[in-house]
Amino acid sequence: MTLHGFDLIACDTSTSARRGVFHTAHGPVHTPLFMPVGTRATIKGVTPDQLRGLGAQVVLANTYHLFLRPGSDIIRDAGGLHAFMGWDRAILTDSGGFQVFSLADTLKLSDDGVEFRSIIDGAKHFWTPEENMRVQQDLGADIAMQLDVCPPYPAERTVVADAVRRSAEWAARCRAAHTREDQALFGIVQGGVHADLRLESVERTVAVDFFGYGIGGYSVGEPHELMLESLAPVAGAMPADKPRYLMGVGNPTTMLQAISLGIDMFDCVLPTRTARTGTAFSSTGRMNMRNARYVRDFGPLDPHCTCPTCTGFTRAYIRHLVTTKEMLGSILLSLHNLHFLLELTDRARQAIERDSYGAFLAEWLAGPGADDY
Amino acid sequence: MTLHGFDLIACDTSTSARRGVFHTAHGPVHTPLFMPVGTRATIKGVTPDQLRGLGAQVVLANTYHLFLRPGSDIIRDAGGLHAFMGWDRAILTDSGGFQVFSLADTLKLSDDGVEFRSIIDGAKHFWTPEENMRVQQDLGADIAMQLDVCPPYPAERTVVADAVRRSAEWAARCRAAHTREDQALFGIVQGGVHADLRLESVERTVAVDFFGYGIGGYSVGEPHELMLESLAPVAGAMPADKPRYLMGVGNPTTMLQAISLGIDMFDCVLPTRTARTGTAFSSTGRMNMRNARYVRDFGPLDPHCTCPTCTGFTRAYIRHLVTTKEMLGSILLSLHNLHFLLELTDRARQAIERDSYGAFLAEWLAGPGADDY
Repeated sequence: MTLHGFDLIACDTSTSARRGVFHTAHGPVHTPLFMPVGTRATIKGVTPDQLRGLGAQVVLANTYHLFLRPGSDIIRDAGGLHAFMGWDRAILTDSGGFQVFSLADTLKLSDDGVEFRSIIDGAKHFWTPEENMRVQQDLGADIAMQLDVCPPYPAERTVVADAVRRSAEWAARCRAAHTREDQALFGIVQGGVHADLRLESVERTVAVDFFGYGIGGYSVGEPHELMLESLAPVAGAMPADKPRYLMGVGNPTTMLQAISLGIDMFDCVLPTRTARTGTAFSSTGRMNMRNARYVRDFGPLDPHCTCPTCTGFTRAYIRHLVTTKEMLGSILLSLHNLHFLLELTDRARQAIERDSYGAFLAEWLAGPGADDY
Repeated sequence: MTLHGFDLIACDTSTSARRGVFHTAHGPVHTPLFMPVGTRATIKGVTPDQLRGLGAQVVLANTYHLFLRPGSDIIRDAGGLHAFMGWDRAILTDSGGFQVFSLADTLKLSDDGVEFRSIIDGAKHFWTPEENMRVQQDLGADIAMQLDVCPPYPAERTVVADAVRRSAEWAARCRAAHTREDQALFGIVQGGVHADLRLESVERTVAVDFFGYGIGGYSVGEPHELMLESLAPVAGAMPADKPRYLMGVGNPTTMLQAISLGIDMFDCVLPTRTARTGTAFSSTGRMNMRNARYVRDFGPLDPHCTCPTCTGFTRAYIRHLVTTKEMLGSILLSLHNLHFLLELTDRARQAIERDSYGAFLAEWLAGPGADDY
């Protein structure tokens, strides 16, 4: 029960899947874990009450977006992110590094830090690792991530190697600048799809010594198989007694496969983003709720699902809401899709506890929905 | 406790305000009453669960919109509006007459009915009073409204007189065509701001004999004072033992004034529509939550309010959500604004029970918010 400690309570024998508990300042968090993304301190269309009802354990918020609006000083003065957004369970903030590198039109990267322009008003900002730690400590999440350098895919090997070197140097500077004892700082491993660079990054980042480790730079456009292939040795090389967090990944099939490689934490905007386009997750694959086949379908979205959407509304009604662009369509599908991933990780945890994760994964992969994610 | 009966349980002595109970197939409904508007079988941004939590008694749905999408046959086959939208309390459908006359670019009006084009796909439709009854009986609300003719404001007196005559003839035809015993049919009084035409319309509509009476053709652009002035004798001329429903009105001050004239029922899109533009109702008037003054305001929206928004979130957070166009901003303000009107009518009911409605109204009118609505 040590704060920021990670207890492994079960390990699957036929795979590398682990069942753990990470102890945050806002209570224990059970892994493997999917974290809904609330970019601007809100899960789009979902109230904190509804999210609690779905069993979400950790919400991810985005340092880049909150730094720009409303500003981390305002969130600090509000009493931190928990008070600001009305969420009393755990919160994780990413460093914003991914957004700086993927959203910014112009950026200047040096060993000292990164200069970027705001997507809101074009204003120039300069983040050193130390400044990023100040911002994340103001936000006050339970878990903060180091500032890292996130190369695009594809990228020259020298660019990726540089990112590995800089990320490791920044890891040490973040660690030195981080002082909040109620906040766990995680390092981030880079290296793209280069096995040797990944392993070098693991070694250098782990040498700094964090409470957990993110694996960044995946899910940026590389082929799915290439990711899983290069992920296996990376996960294997990471310390067994610390949580491993595969950043930005949350489609059901990849998530279940990554769990079998020993990954503990995931986040993704997929469930809520696809909900807003009228797409429902299901055990038989994605359902496009705009489809005319649902016009007179008075059954639930997913007959086996126990979420508020499936127990209260029909496919016909949801299709009506989606085609008329009613907010409630996005809301109900967001609730369902989040429930789908939260329930799937819940089942994964149970399978590991029963030491039957291999069979659980095989069953999913043989199922009708596996190819669709 | 007769189905569709209206029990007057208290009458204020210093005003004409009444406290009643209307008995619907989905239970008793306490008046004076504000009905949230769910145009397309959904209150925008609000789940049925949340709406129940706010204490909403009746939801209004729109026959015009539902006739076009998804079609009343689909809602009938779903088991009616209650099953379709997941709402187990009372529902009222307007006839769609107002939308036919206000939204349609081209319409052909005859004694037989009205031809109009769909705003969705331009398709021609022809509504007789009988066809409109068929549609509303398919929808299956607890209260249906007769098809009426809704003239614009300003309009020639002859146009208004014609609307009064046709509405009365259609009232009789609707009454004859209406057969659903679990659905109460209401007549509608027209006559614009012409006192004599209003009284003629009351007489002719009441002669048909309905379970209640709507007052239409107000809140279409005429001056506020002119409406209240011409409303007083109209309300006075209507039968005391039937509910009186002022259609399309729901701003706090006008609603409280109309209650003092003996009006029992109201509906309006104002609370949810203004919420989506970032406006909050309050006892001190409307609040524009985009305003920079709220950036660091960590107090509740309205310190006296007990709604989920005011008890869970700060002005600063709501301003953040509104300025970043997050759905949760619209959701939280919709919940608050609906609660504001529902709670205001609750207080009005209590004031009538105490026989102190005059003082209650005077206090509101002397308050800081009265001029703002």
